Amino acid sequence: MATLSVGMIGYKFMGKAHSNAYRQVSRFFKLPVTLRMAAICGRDEANVSAACKEFGWEGYETDYHRLLARPDIDIVDITSANNAHAQMAIDAAQAGKHVFCEKPLATNLADARRMLEAVERAGVKHMVCFNYRATPAVALAKQMIEEGRIGRVFHWRAVYLQDWIVDPSFPLVWRLQGEVAGSGAHGDLAAHSIDLAHFLVGDIDSVVGDMRTFIKERPVLAETTGGLSARASEGKGPVTVDDASVFLARFANGAVGTFEATRFAPGHKNYNCFEINGENGSIIFNFERMNELQYFDRRDDGHVQGFRTIQATEGVHPYIGPWWPPGHIIGYEHTFVHTVYNLITAIAENRMPSPNFRDGVRCQAVLEAAAQSVKSGTWEKVAY
Amino acid sequence: MATLSVGMIGYKFMGKAHSNAYRQVSRFFKLPVTLRMAAICGRDEANVSAACKEFGWEGYETDYHRLLARPDIDIVDITSANNAHAQMAIDAAQAGKHVFCEKPLATNLADARRMLEAVERAGVKHMVCFNYRATPAVALAKQMIEEGRIGRVFHWRAVYLQDWIVDPSFPLVWRLQGEVAGSGAHGDLAAHSIDLAHFLVGDIDSVVGDMRTFIKERPVLAETTGGLSARASEGKGPVTVDDASVFLARFANGAVGTFEATRFAPGHKNYNCFEINGENGSIIFNFERMNELQYFDRRDDGHVQGFRTIQATEGVHPYIGPWWPPGHIIGYEHTFVHTVYNLITAIAENRMPSPNFRDGVRCQAVLEAAAQSVKSGTWEKVAY
Amino acid sequence: MATLSVGMIGYKFMGKAHSNAYRQVSRFFKLPVTLRMAAICGRDEANVSAACKEFGWEGYETDYHRLLARPDIDIVDITSANNAHAQMAIDAAQAGKHVFCEKPLATNLADARRMLEAVERAGVKHMVCFNYRATPAVALAKQMIEEGRIGRVFHWRAVYLQDWIVDPSFPLVWRLQGEVAGSGAHGDLAAHSIDLAHFLVGDIDSVVGDMRTFIKERPVLAETTGGLSARASEGKGPVTVDDASVFLARFANGAVGTFEATRFAPGHKNYNCFEINGENGSIIFNFERMNELQYFDRRDDGHVQGFRTIQATEGVHPYIGPWWPPGHIIGYEHTFVHTVYNLITAIAENRMPSPNFRDGVRCQAVLEAAAQSVKSGTWEKVAY
Amino acid sequence: MATLSVGMIGYKFMGKAHSNAYRQVSRFFKLPVTLRMAAICGRDEANVSAACKEFGWEGYETDYHRLLARPDIDIVDITSANNAHAQMAIDAAQAGKHVFCEKPLATNLADARRMLEAVERAGVKHMVCFNYRATPAVALAKQMIEEGRIGRVFHWRAVYLQDWIVDPSFPLVWRLQGEVAGSGAHGDLAAHSIDLAHFLVGDIDSVVGDMRTFIKERPVLAETTGGLSARASEGKGPVTVDDASVFLARFANGAVGTFEATRFAPGHKNYNCFEINGENGSIIFNFERMNELQYFDRRDDGHVQGFRTIQATEGVHPYIGPWWPPGHIIGYEHTFVHTVYNLITAIAENRMPSPNFRDGVRCQAVLEAAAQSVKSGTWEKVAY
Repeated sequence: MATLSVGMIGYKFMGKAHSNAYRQVSRFFKLPVTLRMAAICGRDEANVSAACKEFGWEGYETDYHRLLARPDIDIVDITSANNAHAQMAIDAAQAGKHVFCEKPLATNLADARRMLEAVERAGVKHMVCFNYRATPAVALAKQMIEEGRIGRVFHWRAVYLQDWIVDPSFPLVWRLQGEVAGSGAHGDLAAHSIDLAHFLVGDIDSVVGDMRTFIKERPVLAETTGGLSARASEGKGPVTVDDASVFLARFANGAVGTFEATRFAPGHKNYNCFEINGENGSIIFNFERMNELQYFDRRDDGHVQGFRTIQATEGVHPYIGPWWPPGHIIGYEHTFVHTVYNLITAIAENRMPSPNFRDGVRCQAVLEAAAQSVKSGTWEKVAY
Repeated sequence: MATLSVGMIGYKFMGKAHSNAYRQVSRFFKLPVTLRMAAICGRDEANVSAACKEFGWEGYETDYHRLLARPDIDIVDITSANNAHAQMAIDAAQAGKHVFCEKPLATNLADARRMLEAVERAGVKHMVCFNYRATPAVALAKQMIEEGRIGRVFHWRAVYLQDWIVDPSFPLVWRLQGEVAGSGAHGDLAAHSIDLAHFLVGDIDSVVGDMRTFIKERPVLAETTGGLSARASEGKGPVTVDDASVFLARFANGAVGTFEATRFAPGHKNYNCFEINGENGSIIFNFERMNELQYFDRRDDGHVQGFRTIQATEGVHPYIGPWWPPGHIIGYEHTFVHTVYNLITAIAENRMPSPNFRDGVRCQAVLEAAAQSVKSGTWEKVAY
Repeated sequence: MATLSVGMIGYKFMGKAHSNAYRQVSRFFKLPVTLRMAAICGRDEANVSAACKEFGWEGYETDYHRLLARPDIDIVDITSANNAHAQMAIDAAQAGKHVFCEKPLATNLADARRMLEAVERAGVKHMVCFNYRATPAVALAKQMIEEGRIGRVFHWRAVYLQDWIVDPSFPLVWRLQGEVAGSGAHGDLAAHSIDLAHFLVGDIDSVVGDMRTFIKERPVLAETTGGLSARASEGKGPVTVDDASVFLARFANGAVGTFEATRFAPGHKNYNCFEINGENGSIIFNFERMNELQYFDRRDDGHVQGFRTIQATEGVHPYIGPWWPPGHIIGYEHTFVHTVYNLITAIAENRMPSPNFRDGVRCQAVLEAAAQSVKSGTWEKVAY
Repeated sequence: MATLSVGMIGYKFMGKAHSNAYRQVSRFFKLPVTLRMAAICGRDEANVSAACKEFGWEGYETDYHRLLARPDIDIVDITSANNAHAQMAIDAAQAGKHVFCEKPLATNLADARRMLEAVERAGVKHMVCFNYRATPAVALAKQMIEEGRIGRVFHWRAVYLQDWIVDPSFPLVWRLQGEVAGSGAHGDLAAHSIDLAHFLVGDIDSVVGDMRTFIKERPVLAETTGGLSARASEGKGPVTVDDASVFLARFANGAVGTFEATRFAPGHKNYNCFEINGENGSIIFNFERMNELQYFDRRDDGHVQGFRTIQATEGVHPYIGPWWPPGHIIGYEHTFVHTVYNLITAIAENRMPSPNFRDGVRCQAVLEAAAQSVKSGTWEKVAY
């Protein structure tokens, strides 16, 4: 069996989730190739060597250019901070590597387009890690839509609610710094909702939105003061991203969409929720109960219609077969296992993975139109 | 249009609920007769005259024998304390009145049988107020069972949970005194579950159970010390009913049943809940969400099976037509309106109402078998 | 005890709900006056005389000017079609009557302002029937906010979802005709959400929105063809109101708001739902489970925090005392009983009821700004 | 760092779950030793060698006595069929190995006692795999009980509902054969509920129960006909275990318990649910939503009391720290990772793991008393 070797850049939250996925995928899924966790890459040698051992990689690199120079590496996985994605992906493509990149693809649309151009010019495979598509219940929703169970779509309604920065004493981490993160809840959370809307409903014609930064200054962390020293005064620094983002959308197919992403919704931890209303029925998903899908079928007998709570944990459901018996639920990390399964099988079979950089660009185009509409105060066309 | 005149005995909680039902039923439902709220009856004239006005009765009586002697009264409704039911019902039957009696029919099976004998000998119509049968969602469950949607029944699982006497300082009200109430949670709550089991599943062959009185003494209320003075010491008196009752049941059709009734389940207010599992599907009901019925259909397509939450608030659902639009829910009191509707239409059309004293006796037979099994420590046959 | 006499115009859905409220309020609540259901008024004598009897009114009128001329009438209640509200309310005020008007107050802001001017000039009491404020769980939410349990508000999120016109064969009823209804989901449903936002969060500075009519033509009802004959072709007529309305809002206090109202959400029957996120916690309400309120308290011990499902059915909760024991839920119609209770006690005590025409105007101002923003494509200031 | 080497017997469902746990535990948790997956053992060499590779073991054995003879093995993990547990565990103990055994410990109490005697005589460490104790939400329940949040317990209410054999065409797998499985739902599912009751409430004094086999014959699988050929007629064989088991329990502390386990509850997949009602509050858990715990606190302010849905997915919750951010749920397999973590750290620190064979015997004693009560028709004391 052939081998595909991965080199991964980054070792924080996403690095941990991706590493787990590489380790687990061949334990549960039948892959057409041997998957090799060749190298992890990070600038701090102490940290990256510890992560190498903890996460189960063969070796490590401290300079991503050296990673790219290695002939044994087939796939480069980018899990570093958002503002580093573009250059790394372009360099990886130029080095002839397949590229797997965390979302959001970039911190702006122009960069995202350059990334797409680079991978297409290089003729390599590419994928963006919109892992929620690979939730069994979400994949089931997609299947049900394709089966015509919803029909013409009237409404898309997405909220992605978290609450981890409601406390004003929560510090100024990198995700709250615009130059590193690009945006706040918008690029971090709404990006997922936008991708799901593309996946399940289709193109968005135009948007109008609003953003808010509720807490404008936060304590500067000692470890991050380096880059922030110029503007840190009395131990506080400015929050330069949005805490919350809302926008309305007009889909190309006539559906009405609403999007909301916030880190200021006490009680909601990872409430990535969407609802679709169509002529034949409705679908509701909420990631905090990610093993379930709500489904209403207008064609059920009139007196026994009702929202069903489908436990998407059975062999008939997408991705579930290799796991556990019905009702024995899976978790967050499994969405990455499924995503990596899709990545590896596509590359092994010489197909383009999905979602890929084109989807990443499309998502970025919506993010950017929404951000632009906040400035212009009016509807903005999405420049796909 | 002919007239049916009601005389009601009792004016407490149930008197209030029944009065409301009589007032409302002809406002919303088309009755084949004119319904007349002729007289309310109670021993304390000040109280009963106030209730008469508050509840909307034409007049009042202070002696139920005088009520029975009135030729204008067609139906006698008994809402007084449990230990008074038997004599009143027998007297009413002998006076040639149709009898509508609150549950439990009596405080023991022998009394219940005497009551049934009396109404049958007198040839009058009779009904027992198992009002939960007249919940739209419960009537829908019945309809669905008759449609074959559940098929052969494997399991009946009923809990009726309340929490109003968890506090040890809650006083020794009449419902906690065996000589007045007959029993505690058993006759008050399990009685409803038993009737629903009869309604939806069928006869019970035998039972084995347990009961518990968790708090054995409670403060004696000043107003009730009269009847309790002999045994009230230091302001406390003994609780002489069960706080909780549990039993297993073997249904005649082979199904396995469990019943639990308690007033010691913090957080549950009126959690009258049952579940039925059958070869084709399952049904779950909970009175705290009485407008909803959960339904699982094994015959749905495999990948979209799930418990449905049916909102039984539409015109296609039992009893709903005369009320409000879909999703505009109804409440507890409406179950009495529906019950009274069934009572009045049956009498007007010379049919026996349902559930009637036969159902009351059947319920009492199960209550008594369960109580007996607590003493004997073994399974007891139900002596229907 | 003094008497207050009501004359009500209209006898359809709202006439039925209001009549029930007048009948029931003095049965359950202690009023400081005697409430008299003096007369119901409608143009069709056969219909209004039948309604008079069915709903329990003393008499009826077929011309509302005659109702206004009656010296025995203290309060005029307007439940007729939206486009009739303004003239009737102004005439009633000029006749010196207190005015109770269904929502939306008018079909446009100018009319609403004229109505407010009329009642204020006449010095009469006035109220608008935003009945959802009088849901116990909603009143509890208000109380909790006043207790500081939410603190600074970050988010208001309201959806009001129904599904009764998803079927294209559903006919062109008056609610789908712009000249009678004024608007569709916007004035019918969003109006309630806006009022609740005013009640619970505060003033809205500006809005931007979108509307959609998904099904543009519907079968003309025989009974309505009169007024539509000019444009009815081949049995179909144009839908001239919105099927769905969405808008973003900037609250004066800095909170971010989203609103959505639609009649095209299969499975949702009367899903009038809002969520508030604040610095200390969150509140969620959904009318389909109107007896419940969800509450998250950030100040609970860290390891036992979670959304609570409060059953607002206990004596400690607003409006519940006169009804039933805990867990014995109430329904839609009770919100009108509570509203009428507030109306009658305020007038009896010479206080201005709440919500009143000022609230009606405020709601209309937001409705109009949102509608204007659909045309202008940009944010519109609310002209309170 | 020292090393602990595991040899595991069995490679089916539980072998897969345990293997995953060994692989994952050192990736996420800090262990005080190096954990080595030394050997997997099974009789069929083709199968066990494939499992060895798939599950990530160093090597394999085809005879468990050879596994026990290996000096490099410290811990023997038994995941084979129930009827094999006893001899293997006794042999392992006699070989001086620590023993980790799947539940139920044995197929009867006498065997379980012999197993306990063997491990105690050998002075080895032992553990039984009641993995549900290691669910974060369940461990949180335990913590809350120890904090006094429930107080005196009134009720324990457990149901464990599945539906995988409702179809009569489902074949006669080993779990439906008494001589291999020992019992059906009783030992498979009720065993878990009993262990949780011991963990959270305490000793059970006596029980009375009922069992049922709803479908008495099933198709014999070709692969199992060998052992069943004598009694297979026309391709069907008798089901010799219970399909459902119910029993009442009297706890030593005065609490009332109910238990129900069934494989005949359509719509419930792995509904391992318990509820505890105590003087200060209640707790509800359901494995299908295993990341959540319901909690009602009677000491909350009266008007804001309600069942909380705690998402036990935060750093403050048991076992969660090493995993993912709040709201990013974990799944079934993680309970095994936590159990193995408890096993390894206890052995490394020379402590007895918990739950151990004493807990296994205690569980078996309750199972046996319940089974005996079905025969005797009366209450049976638990012979701990």
